[in-house]
Amino acid sequence: FPSHDNKVFISTFPFGERNDFPLEMLTNNEVKFICNPLKRKLTEDEMCSLAKESSVIIAGTEPITEKVFQNAPHLRHISRVGVGLDSVDLQAAQVRGISISYTPEAPAPAVAELTIGLIINLLRNIHLANDSMHAGKWNRFFGRRVAEITLGIIGVGRIGARVLRRTAAFGTPRILANDLLPNLDLNREFKLEWVSKKEIFRQADVITLHVPLTPRTRSLVGDVEISLMKSDALLINTSRGGVVDEQALFEALKSQKIAGAAVDVFEEEPYRGPLADLPNCLLTSHMGSMSLDCRSRMEIEATEEAIRFLKGQPLLSPVPQEEYDLQSEFKREP
Amino acid sequence: FPSHDNKVFISTFPFGERNDFPLEMLTNNEVKFICNPLKRKLTEDEMCSLAKESSVIIAGTEPITEKVFQNAPHLRHISRVGVGLDSVDLQAAQVRGISISYTPEAPAPAVAELTIGLIINLLRNIHLANDSMHAGKWNRFFGRRVAEITLGIIGVGRIGARVLRRTAAFGTPRILANDLLPNLDLNREFKLEWVSKKEIFRQADVITLHVPLTPRTRSLVGDVEISLMKSDALLINTSRGGVVDEQALFEALKSQKIAGAAVDVFEEEPYRGPLADLPNCLLTSHMGSMSLDCRSRMEIEATEEAIRFLKGQPLLSPVPQEEYDLQSEFKREP
Repeated sequence: FPSHDNKVFISTFPFGERNDFPLEMLTNNEVKFICNPLKRKLTEDEMCSLAKESSVIIAGTEPITEKVFQNAPHLRHISRVGVGLDSVDLQAAQVRGISISYTPEAPAPAVAELTIGLIINLLRNIHLANDSMHAGKWNRFFGRRVAEITLGIIGVGRIGARVLRRTAAFGTPRILANDLLPNLDLNREFKLEWVSKKEIFRQADVITLHVPLTPRTRSLVGDVEISLMKSDALLINTSRGGVVDEQALFEALKSQKIAGAAVDVFEEEPYRGPLADLPNCLLTSHMGSMSLDCRSRMEIEATEEAIRFLKGQPLLSPVPQEEYDLQSEFKREP
Repeated sequence: FPSHDNKVFISTFPFGERNDFPLEMLTNNEVKFICNPLKRKLTEDEMCSLAKESSVIIAGTEPITEKVFQNAPHLRHISRVGVGLDSVDLQAAQVRGISISYTPEAPAPAVAELTIGLIINLLRNIHLANDSMHAGKWNRFFGRRVAEITLGIIGVGRIGARVLRRTAAFGTPRILANDLLPNLDLNREFKLEWVSKKEIFRQADVITLHVPLTPRTRSLVGDVEISLMKSDALLINTSRGGVVDEQALFEALKSQKIAGAAVDVFEEEPYRGPLADLPNCLLTSHMGSMSLDCRSRMEIEATEEAIRFLKGQPLLSPVPQEEYDLQSEFKREP
């Protein structure tokens, strides 16, 4: 390789923290790498200056834009640790011949489990009880069971289907589903009603989102959608921040137009916004994939792809063309 | 009836709050009743003065002791809303010919669901992330998945078996079980290893308790048992407070001998103790059965039993002799 040809910049953080095998893989394969020195999510400008010399980026959700590409002339491959591609300008990468791989399967089980945890937490008011108890107050909160509710699920792909599988064991009586196209195979396993998003907002007691962030899903939940929801509805977002209009959600929770929400992902991360002032908003810090096993698997898979790329071997998980199409459809048809 | 013969004292609280059908049932059946006027869990002394005139008590977990019996000369039946009988002196009731019924099935699904919620909450540090986010701090917590852990379950009856059924959907790889006698039927449905309690304390990552409080289970988890546990072990108690030695648990969590605990039940309720000072102790307020459907079913079933008793009809759920035996075995063999 020419000297810049095997320089890997690991922009995601954390990386190799609980399991340093990915770092060992790079060393054993004689790949030079540097880790994110700021130990937090990087901004576009930081990416521009830190990725300068890299031929490969092992990336989290930090922005990788045309501006970053202009500042990283040797960049030839991006290996995403995870599945979402909203942070990467796919078109600009394609124009420059920068290939992209991702780890689409690895995060799904962990995100699905966190989602179930958040659903039960909201339904039973575990977070409110915990706050109350730690403040020395004994309030017994009534709740609802997963077996009592109508569940609405928007996006029934890798993660959504796993949420369904785990929910089914609780005996949820009615499940409303929506996606770009219905996956009717799932109807063999689950009693799903495929309905419009509008009907989900109208009828579901618990609404959970499992879509990628694309021009089509941006602000999928905003003022209008919230106005359709039941007053005791609960909203869970473990997908991407931009899918929910945070200001609209804030107003709805503050005025108790809906009963509660659990939010793991934010328009801007780290999140420092007003949802933190609302006790009926359960907040976690983009932890969907942060189980030891899934995080480890994602990092190992992304590192393998980076090494495959550098060795000129075929990629195992190149981003498929439909992901490029999804991101660009609004650009093509303005 | 003589005038005191259909006076029902509803000592449990809340009762008929979200669904007032049980109160309507009493009225429609011309049963005189009074509700707990203090709107919180009653003490033994309060029971003595408030139950004076009653022939039937519809009871929660407040103490119903020999002293209460001495002060309630007309008392002939206790209808427990729920399943635990540790609050009732069964022997003393039997000696006086006071019959007792309970609602053993109704709370189980709600307790099992809360338990799963608490398990995921602890494994993924949802409570710590929520505290942190509401304090304006972005910390991404690593967690473990239900599919990564060895689950230890002590007590595999109505509730424990339901916890198993829901956990199975997550693919828990190893489940260690313990009970007075193994229910080997369950091995057809689940891959259970029946082991001693000692082995559960030694090997399990998550330990959940689903036993009644009896002389045999009092302080089932104390200093000795905690000393056997892994340093990253998590303990969940949705059974009865006395089953875990609260002081021992407090010391263990404070010194981080074990990683965390979720506690829904306490030696004394309302709880006002030092566990509330520990962020790694997730606390709820005896909410296991507090789902709208289960609570409603429990109240309706307990009210039906009270009415059956007053009408001289056979009881549907009299407390079986083995419950009397379990409570008294340590009295008989001191």
